[in-house]
Amino acid sequence: MDGQGNGDAGGSQCDIVARAFVDHYYRTFDFDRAALAALYGQTSMLSFEGHAVAGAEEIGQKLAQLPFEQCRHTVSTVDCQPSPSFPGSILVFVSGNLQLAGEEHQLRFSQMFQLVPNEQGSFFVQNDIFRLNYG
Amino acid sequence: MDGQGNGDAGGSQCDIVARAFVDHYYRTFDFDRAALAALYGQTSMLSFEGHAVAGAEEIGQKLAQLPFEQCRHTVSTVDCQPSPSFPGSILVFVSGNLQLAGEEHQLRFSQMFQLVPNEQGSFFVQNDIFRLNYG
Repeated sequence: MDGQGNGDAGGSQCDIVARAFVDHYYRTFDFDRAALAALYGQTSMLSFEGHAVAGAEEIGQKLAQLPFEQCRHTVSTVDCQPSPSFPGSILVFVSGNLQLAGEEHQLRFSQMFQLVPNEQGSFFVQNDIFRLNYG
Repeated sequence: MDGQGNGDAGGSQCDIVARAFVDHYYRTFDFDRAALAALYGQTSMLSFEGHAVAGAEEIGQKLAQLPFEQCRHTVSTVDCQPSPSFPGSILVFVSGNLQLAGEEHQLRFSQMFQLVPNEQGSFFVQNDIFRLNYG
């Protein structure tokens, strides 16, 4: 994790939420991918390598059907900024490496999320855009 | 430019705005960097390689003072999604290469923007997060 990752743009609350979310998101992705759908809502949008799906159910199906079984994300940087959406919304920008089972080389990736507070006092992922960074 | 870059998530209006903005932003960055400040507003935030600045004036100074004179951005992918911020706001996610004058190798970068409509019927950059993607 890059200690410079957040600067002062979002203040500490934004920083804390972003890092906690990132830890939770990739641990869930790597060890219990079927549980990711619960992090999205009805209005959520995912763009995964240019393929767009919407809504928690379809997003969950898309993530479950990705053509690899096992993977490990390693996060390099986390940046966050408050978003002028609903109060408390934040933008999270991640870069890191993705190791797929059986593959020799890691893949670089970048991903952004917009987290929006829900009625339960937690957050859901409203926006999610993922790209591999090919050298 | 990746033809799959936007899918259907944001519809064509989002797509058109995102691509027009990306073309304009990087052309301005590469050929008239001092003019970039005009794309930001008083509430704007920039995180550039983990360094955070806020407000159009400070952001313009930060971009003007980056430790390279000449550069050329080449965009590989553009993804966009509507944001639940002010109506018409969109999130733009870019990956590409950055060639610095005098450097042999290009650098990979990823960058995200949140564009918010202004009173003039155009957009300003509310959020901007930039990261180089080191291999």
